Amino acid sequence: MSNSFGKLFTLTTFGESHGIAIGGVIDGCPAGLKLDLEAVQHELDRRKPGQSNIVTQRKEPDQVEFLSGIFDGKTTGTSIGFVIKNTNQKSKDYSDIKDSFRPSHADYTYEKKYGLRDYRGGGRSSARETANWIVAGAVAKQLLAKVQINAYTSSVGSIFLEKPYQELDFNLTESNAVRCPDQEYAEKMIKRIKEIKKQGDTVGGTITCVVKNVPVGFGEPIFNKLHAKLGNAMLSINAVKGFEYGSGFCGAQMKGSEHNDAFKSDGTTKSNLSGGIQGGISNGMDIYFRVAFKPVATLLQKYETIDKGGKKVEIQGKGRHDPCVVPRAVPIVEALTAMVLADFYLLNKTHNL
Amino acid sequence: MSNSFGKLFTLTTFGESHGIAIGGVIDGCPAGLKLDLEAVQHELDRRKPGQSNIVTQRKEPDQVEFLSGIFDGKTTGTSIGFVIKNTNQKSKDYSDIKDSFRPSHADYTYEKKYGLRDYRGGGRSSARETANWIVAGAVAKQLLAKVQINAYTSSVGSIFLEKPYQELDFNLTESNAVRCPDQEYAEKMIKRIKEIKKQGDTVGGTITCVVKNVPVGFGEPIFNKLHAKLGNAMLSINAVKGFEYGSGFCGAQMKGSEHNDAFKSDGTTKSNLSGGIQGGISNGMDIYFRVAFKPVATLLQKYETIDKGGKKVEIQGKGRHDPCVVPRAVPIVEALTAMVLADFYLLNKTHNL
Amino acid sequence: MSNSFGKLFTLTTFGESHGIAIGGVIDGCPAGLKLDLEAVQHELDRRKPGQSNIVTQRKEPDQVEFLSGIFDGKTTGTSIGFVIKNTNQKSKDYSDIKDSFRPSHADYTYEKKYGLRDYRGGGRSSARETANWIVAGAVAKQLLAKVQINAYTSSVGSIFLEKPYQELDFNLTESNAVRCPDQEYAEKMIKRIKEIKKQGDTVGGTITCVVKNVPVGFGEPIFNKLHAKLGNAMLSINAVKGFEYGSGFCGAQMKGSEHNDAFKSDGTTKSNLSGGIQGGISNGMDIYFRVAFKPVATLLQKYETIDKGGKKVEIQGKGRHDPCVVPRAVPIVEALTAMVLADFYLLNKTHNL
Amino acid sequence: MSNSFGKLFTLTTFGESHGIAIGGVIDGCPAGLKLDLEAVQHELDRRKPGQSNIVTQRKEPDQVEFLSGIFDGKTTGTSIGFVIKNTNQKSKDYSDIKDSFRPSHADYTYEKKYGLRDYRGGGRSSARETANWIVAGAVAKQLLAKVQINAYTSSVGSIFLEKPYQELDFNLTESNAVRCPDQEYAEKMIKRIKEIKKQGDTVGGTITCVVKNVPVGFGEPIFNKLHAKLGNAMLSINAVKGFEYGSGFCGAQMKGSEHNDAFKSDGTTKSNLSGGIQGGISNGMDIYFRVAFKPVATLLQKYETIDKGGKKVEIQGKGRHDPCVVPRAVPIVEALTAMVLADFYLLNKTHNL
Repeated sequence: MSNSFGKLFTLTTFGESHGIAIGGVIDGCPAGLKLDLEAVQHELDRRKPGQSNIVTQRKEPDQVEFLSGIFDGKTTGTSIGFVIKNTNQKSKDYSDIKDSFRPSHADYTYEKKYGLRDYRGGGRSSARETANWIVAGAVAKQLLAKVQINAYTSSVGSIFLEKPYQELDFNLTESNAVRCPDQEYAEKMIKRIKEIKKQGDTVGGTITCVVKNVPVGFGEPIFNKLHAKLGNAMLSINAVKGFEYGSGFCGAQMKGSEHNDAFKSDGTTKSNLSGGIQGGISNGMDIYFRVAFKPVATLLQKYETIDKGGKKVEIQGKGRHDPCVVPRAVPIVEALTAMVLADFYLLNKTHNL
Repeated sequence: MSNSFGKLFTLTTFGESHGIAIGGVIDGCPAGLKLDLEAVQHELDRRKPGQSNIVTQRKEPDQVEFLSGIFDGKTTGTSIGFVIKNTNQKSKDYSDIKDSFRPSHADYTYEKKYGLRDYRGGGRSSARETANWIVAGAVAKQLLAKVQINAYTSSVGSIFLEKPYQELDFNLTESNAVRCPDQEYAEKMIKRIKEIKKQGDTVGGTITCVVKNVPVGFGEPIFNKLHAKLGNAMLSINAVKGFEYGSGFCGAQMKGSEHNDAFKSDGTTKSNLSGGIQGGISNGMDIYFRVAFKPVATLLQKYETIDKGGKKVEIQGKGRHDPCVVPRAVPIVEALTAMVLADFYLLNKTHNL
Repeated sequence: MSNSFGKLFTLTTFGESHGIAIGGVIDGCPAGLKLDLEAVQHELDRRKPGQSNIVTQRKEPDQVEFLSGIFDGKTTGTSIGFVIKNTNQKSKDYSDIKDSFRPSHADYTYEKKYGLRDYRGGGRSSARETANWIVAGAVAKQLLAKVQINAYTSSVGSIFLEKPYQELDFNLTESNAVRCPDQEYAEKMIKRIKEIKKQGDTVGGTITCVVKNVPVGFGEPIFNKLHAKLGNAMLSINAVKGFEYGSGFCGAQMKGSEHNDAFKSDGTTKSNLSGGIQGGISNGMDIYFRVAFKPVATLLQKYETIDKGGKKVEIQGKGRHDPCVVPRAVPIVEALTAMVLADFYLLNKTHNL
Repeated sequence: MSNSFGKLFTLTTFGESHGIAIGGVIDGCPAGLKLDLEAVQHELDRRKPGQSNIVTQRKEPDQVEFLSGIFDGKTTGTSIGFVIKNTNQKSKDYSDIKDSFRPSHADYTYEKKYGLRDYRGGGRSSARETANWIVAGAVAKQLLAKVQINAYTSSVGSIFLEKPYQELDFNLTESNAVRCPDQEYAEKMIKRIKEIKKQGDTVGGTITCVVKNVPVGFGEPIFNKLHAKLGNAMLSINAVKGFEYGSGFCGAQMKGSEHNDAFKSDGTTKSNLSGGIQGGISNGMDIYFRVAFKPVATLLQKYETIDKGGKKVEIQGKGRHDPCVVPRAVPIVEALTAMVLADFYLLNKTHNL
């Protein structure tokens, strides 16, 4: 089931960018959870297009409609179905991409794998799908009321926010369009994105996510390690090329004597290069990880590519696309993190008598 | 099932470092595959301790015994059970780690999660488990006869092999103890590991893996993307802190106009920053990725830690441990890659009429 | 995921009897299947209420709306989302069942398990859910174009159609309201149901299902046997109390020398007490099985029961309910059969090189 | 994974009748369970051949060896690996069945599905596999210490024990060779089996299973109903042709007014035709069900069949086989019941906040 995620707290999704609607089924959410539906919609609004002048100017209300599983404001323990209508699907002219393959898109691989594809706006390969994840993630966040999940933009192109996360005030993340909790760096990043946009080009970046208050014990040995599932989740986001947690790739340059996290007498550790996870299981320290996003492949430039027959064609990139996907991906990273943790929260109930 | 991996080609494992035996069950391997059992044992020999003077000097024969699923030299389509006996488990004195938690090990999290743990040699959290993966991976490699999987050590500490993989001769990987296909860099890395070993310290490193001849179409949209499963697999290896594929974290600094892989008329691409995967599905180009390993946490030094009661205790690291896990992890990376690809090979048979 | 069915061809569903809509996600349907949407709606119409005077007179149009996964009339290999709106949900007075438990319903167990329940019309426990199964089953039927699945009513109360299925003309099944392909018995059954209805009572019955043209090889050893999955599916239908295939419970009275199915030289068998399955795998002969349905628990009578506090209350059964569920369950049995077979059709593609 | 059973408490198995060993991996058993290994072996002894003169006289010690997951007498929460060596595999002459298909065996379907088969003693299709289930079931029984699972032989051929289970003393089940808790009927059944054995023939029968003290709430709506999983499990046992629970097939002849189970004020019910399950969820009443076994297909007679080429061949049935499988299947029914319940026990921990 390639459209399902999770073992106990699960999401199964459907929907194409320009079809009638996208949506999904959340299964395994425990009964009796009082759901704040406005909080769910608020998360969707964080992701939706058109929020600022550095993201795509498409207009999509992205209004979630819950169809089941909630009664008298509470979850009933049965599956939660929802849809988000696609209001933006115009009978646009797709003749340019219908028969040709855009570089670094999924056009070619979908066509070759399945023999056909819904070419309108990328179809199933569109990042529109991530709106579904936001819904499930927002439910998961409410299930994990005490856990704090804070993602933020930590780089745009070569502009890196170099402060350690401990020095940041996550309350500032939403105060600017790029979702960087440091105002000075936020401005630099925004400036960079505007320059790139003017060039009809795009730029990559990274998101850092910090999770506080995860109890000891989330995660399972061997093939269901907490960080492996986080990595799996993050690598499922469109445009993601890398994942590291704790010391990450830097840790690979270190010596053991520098890297080990010495214990304090209360079981916490003095340093936290482990990133809050030991042997695949949370140790109660902050969990943190970093996700790399490539630059969006859709450029507002003229470029050459091939059609289905292998003939060269010239395409003029057009439409309303993000010059940098990172700001809008911040809530997506948080949503998937919440889903992963909700799953382990439930699994962890089953490991003792 | 946290001890199972894969959807169709699956491995389920068991075993503690110092128990009677480790082993597993391979399920879903198609019938009629002529299995070269010596090739399986050869892969195990690549991983086993004591191969050179830069790895642990423990002696474990790591002889796999197949118990079922093979008849007249061929797989029968039924489950393949196997065991690897633990011959090295002596009635050692574990009093030092029995009641204390080693830093940056899984001692603390296992104890807190489960309320008890098999403390002998790390128990289930030991990298001994990876011998099971080698067995399944070796079977998967034979199933994917045409696919070439080549992993190699691409850095040790701050010594980076900076040549692009296209300039390397993978036939040289096994010619030196550190498994680096460039002789000059191999020597530098070996020298570095020996220095570290003398200090009773350890060092991290990275492994790069290159996969050739994967047909177009492996991988599935949304939650079963090829690179997400590769990442999931790699992050399951003990000590791994990061994963990136194609342009990876570097790609996050690039512009779209630099990053897009233009098509040639035959559907191949001029560059391959995508790393052979578009939209989660292989596109027929080389797949390549990089895995970061932290330094081994077990030092042959004296250090301070806490016991179960939170009291400070001093421990003298001893025994035979790897100063750098990377050389022995090379066949592990290959094995997991083969398992992931075998799964997608089978899944891919089901996506068309 | 208790709301999902199948391994490769899967259905995940949601929806309460009197919520906004029910619906589901079909995942794993191969790409390139030309879908006849009218045929899907036709199957739904076979199940829907109000078709005749021996079934419930509720009016529900049960119109399926496909939201994704189909493009230019063909499946694309991506997930197929669909909804069926609940048009019949009136703001009815539920005060009688809100706080009391109807006998032999799921009221009590849902309330005790989850701590709350959507009591309107049975909520998630309502057989309305089976409309979702019809949709997925209708898609599965089209995937298995050559396989013929024919279910029919084989008993109502103590009226048993005693002819072997080989003597029946399945073209007649839809010619009468009770879905019995023998006109004489059909009339007896209809008469019986009308009598029962007049009494405000209900009656049970059995459905027999015959599947022709299943190739050799569907089903898998040990825990995925074809008949075990058929049994699992049938026992998932509301009101089902028993399942038998081939010789079934009668076979338990026989001797081996009577029961064994001798081979003909072409691999077919002279008798077929095995019911077309050997060792959990189809052998190419007709598959046949029988499903027992208890009488509907909702009576149009006055009866005594308890409320949440354990106090005795008297309830007057009312509304529009089926006096016998069997006729409307015939297409449900076929739908689940098709789903099971579609799953094995796909799995069977993966068992050889 | 057709060799795995369960969602949280899972068993994955391997092994052929005449291979080196059979065995399996139990995953998901909670940590801290004090395991009585002699009790496990005792259950195996109940199943093993050669216990009495009405079962096969093969000699197999069926000694289970646990390889992992248990430490200091307790489960550790990691996977439990085990093997049972095949001591009885002689280099027997299989030339008769190597190239021919025995009627009503899995020879033909395995050969056609997989292209080859391990023909020695039935290979993977042999009921020897059920010894693995006994091991997992015995662990599950210990996990469910308060639940009482009692299976017994309720018919052999046409000899039916007609007393309701409430009148039986389950302590007598093990007092006779046929495992019928009524001494008078036990003798009749034994006599019948001896007659059948003398004829070189076999006979079918049924097993009834009664489960007491299951709390309210085991089982899940829609596709994971308690009785559907019990049915799935029972239909996985070799030779099983039917399953019914509660009123079963008899219930299909009843009227709703007769069938409904009226509530008492404490939430228990006056009658229990529901069989302890409402809407797929246990209601706290006794769970009971019945399983039909066909006669063993291996006869000690001469019979005609076909070889791989479709040519007629005559085979002389020989060896040591059960004239009636039912007595030895009683512990198997109990084991699978325990496994199903253990799974729901764990799942049920996750359905509330």
